Formats: sequence, structure tokens, C-alpha cells
Amino acid sequence: MDVDEKYFNNISNRERAIFEGAITMGALFHQFVGTPVNLESVDNLENSIKVAMELQPCIDEVEVKINRKLLEESKSEFDYISLSGEMMNIKVISNYGEKKAILMMEYIEELKYPLMYVKDII
Amino acid sequence: MDVDEKYFNNISNRERAIFEGAITMGALFHQFVGTPVNLESVDNLENSIKVAMELQPCIDEVEVKINRKLLEESKSEFDYISLSGEMMNIKVISNYGEKKAILMMEYIEELKYPLMYVKDII
Amino acid sequence: MDVDEKYFNNISNRERAIFEGAITMGALFHQFVGTPVNLESVDNLENSIKVAMELQPCIDEVEVKINRKLLEESKSEFDYISLSGEMMNIKVISNYGEKKAILMMEYIEELKYPLMYVKDII
Amino acid sequence: MDVDEKYFNNISNRERAIFEGAITMGALFHQFVGTPVNLESVDNLENSIKVAMELQPCIDEVEVKINRKLLEESKSEFDYISLSGEMMNIKVISNYGEKKAILMMEYIEELKYPLMYVKDII
Repeated sequence: MDVDEKYFNNISNRERAIFEGAITMGALFHQFVGTPVNLESVDNLENSIKVAMELQPCIDEVEVKINRKLLEESKSEFDYISLSGEMMNIKVISNYGEKKAILMMEYIEELKYPLMYVKDII
Repeated sequence: MDVDEKYFNNISNRERAIFEGAITMGALFHQFVGTPVNLESVDNLENSIKVAMELQPCIDEVEVKINRKLLEESKSEFDYISLSGEMMNIKVISNYGEKKAILMMEYIEELKYPLMYVKDII
Repeated sequence: MDVDEKYFNNISNRERAIFEGAITMGALFHQFVGTPVNLESVDNLENSIKVAMELQPCIDEVEVKINRKLLEESKSEFDYISLSGEMMNIKVISNYGEKKAILMMEYIEELKYPLMYVKDII
Repeated sequence: MDVDEKYFNNISNRERAIFEGAITMGALFHQFVGTPVNLESVDNLENSIKVAMELQPCIDEVEVKINRKLLEESKSEFDYISLSGEMMNIKVISNYGEKKAILMMEYIEELKYPLMYVKDII
């Protein structure tokens, strides 16, 4: 089966890159929020999120930065916390045909919200 | 802050509808896969997934159909199973400006994969 | 196969009730943290968590109370938030043989931690 | 606050070890089911699950073995799959006071179920 021809011939390459990148953004957030993490494990977690999410279709690169300051400040008596959207900074680069979409997620204080948006399409 | 003006003025209304719908697709899958479910609870779960995911930005409607036949066939000794992508059929209708995107997820036997795609944009 | 005889004959009924209740506590937290929720959807979400988690082995009853005050205070620009451990109050009643364990999860300010503990065994 | 004295003086050391180990079992399953994985990423995922879950209270050691054969057999057109309970083999060693509990999760074909049980307490 030609999946692209059968299921995706109604959207442009640019739209396909946005589509696949956005799926991965939503997936990443809801898969990993809640994971136990602290300053000792944070490098490992960032890397494993990257490795897992780069498997998704049309994904070139995933970068995850977890806010060490927030991690330290919100540390519980038990020396770790549950990962939350507020402390994640994510970049997803997706790509289809000749088009590349750069998507971001960052916590916007004014909105009290981890906003996902398209930074650029090249 | 005008979020649309500040973060989304580089994509079209059509692209925005695709973007928001795709985030919700990825989010839904990774939030709810693993949830205990059986024939008695399945209506309740379908509805609560719908109610939760319709809260996301630019989402008009979410429909979730969980395959009762698969649910019954894969039932364990303990009379329930963990929800998996294979048994979900999802429709997400997102909307921005005058554009509406209809996104689907369905398990495609030939691909052995729960494929997300854009069915239509109107 | 006699599952109880084969896999659980090394622990008491009281221990079995604790074991099964604790699994459900951990499962509930990590399955549902991250779910979109607001004041309009919160009753629905509480109920669907209850219905799903009561399917697990040896579980008599699950009660979930999501803190409406925190829900309202932490509301984002987009009028919903992601469910977090801080806002959940959970009771799980598990039962094996003649023993019933009552387990709780509540956020303890002093610990900055959603503590799970055994309230009573009867 | 003396957490052990305030919240856990009604259960034995042995029961506490079972309780904490069982929470981690349920948590691990429901946190990571759904994660994208393939033969290239599986070592990384096993390790990151271990690192994350060993942060939980009273956990000495977590071992995760993901079934490579199942991973290969169920591979989709897109060269990865979503992690499911069926393909995980887990050992959790928890410990409180002088007591150590060894908990297992393995998929039991006859039950069609990833069974969690207490293997030993020493």
C-alpha cells in the first residue's frame, strides 16, 4: 500500500510536516507527564524521551529540556517529583517531502499554559 | 497577549486547524492507552475521553469508538484489558477561523498500525 | 490454573489486600495524571477514573476527589488544566479473603508530596 | 514530620515493603505503556524506566526486560510499536526496615494477563 498516496494526498507537504510534528508534540506530553524525575535522573529522562519520540513517522529530531531550577524548587520530601508540562521545553523537527516544520512547546507564564506552536517552516 | 497574533501568524487557518487537531490525536492516544476497560465500562470510557479531549484548544468534537469485538476476544482471566491503539477508532474535528479539519485514527491491518490522517478539510 | 494457589500462597490475605490496593493506587496516578480537566468536566473525570480502576483485581471501591479550588486557581488562559497529583484525593478499598484494606492518597503540604498510605485494614 | 510514625505505624515492615513495591509496579506499567519503542531504542527505554522508577520511595532496584521477539514480530510498517504489558517482564525490589520484597510482573499466556505478584520476601 502507498500510504502517502492513499491517506495523505489531500494535504500539502508543508501541512503533512505540521501534522506529524503536532502528533508527536501531543504524544510526548501525555506519555511522559507524571514520570518520576530529579536532578540525578534528568539527563537520562531527556535523552530517553528524545530517543522514543524520534521513532514516530516523519520526525527528524526531538529536543527536550527540563527546567533544573523548577525541578530543584519543587522537590518533595522524597527527593523527586512527577514531571509536569510547566517544566518542559520541547523542540520537534518534522519533515515531509522538501518541507521541514520546527515546532516548539514552552510554558508561557502569562497564559499559565505550556503552549505548543509552529516556530518555523522551511 | 494576543496568542494567535504572537505565536500563530506564520501559518494559515487551515494549517492551524490541522495543527491543533493533530496535537489532540497524539495526546488522546498516549493519555488513555493502558486504561483498564471491559464491555461494562466501555461506554463510560469512550464518553470520558471525548469530554476530556474536547477541552483542548480549537477542538469542536471528539468521537471515540472502542472495538467491542476485540475487547471481548482479548479479555483476560480478570475480565478486563488495557486499552490499546489497535482497538480505537477516533475522529477529531478541529476548527480555526473559517476552517474545519476532520482527523481520523483507525487501525490499518495491512500496516499493523493505528494510522492518524486528515480525512477532510472544509 | 489456581492463580491464588500458584502465585500468592506466600503472602497473607491482609498482605494480598495491601498488594492489590497499592498496585491500583500507583496505576491510577500514572494513568490519569496529565488528563485535561476543568470545572465542567471534573465530575465526569472523577467517575470515569472510578469505573476504570474498579476493574482491577480485588478492588471493591475507588473514590476520587479532585480539588475544585486548585482547579479554578490554576486554570490557564485556555480554560482547563492537566490533572496533577497535587489536586487528587483518592481512596481505594481492596479486599481479599476476609481482609479489607483502605488506602488513601492525599497531597501533604509539608512533604510537598501526594502521599499514599494504608489508612486501615479490617 | 515523622512520616513513618504518622502514616505507617499500623502496618509491619514486611507489609510496608509490599505496599511500596506494589505502588511502583502499578505506576511503572501505566506510566510507560504506549511509549514508542523498537529494537534500536529498547535498551535505552529499559534503562530509563529503571532509572525513573528507582526514585520512588523504598525502591532498591527495578529491572525491566522487554521481549525482543515480540517487539520484532509486532513491528509495524513504521518500524516501531507502542509498548504493551504483554511484552514486559519486570522485577521490583523494595525494602523497608530489615524487610525486602521481590515483586514480579510477567505475562502469563494462560491468563492472557500481565500478572503482578510477590515472588519472595526476605
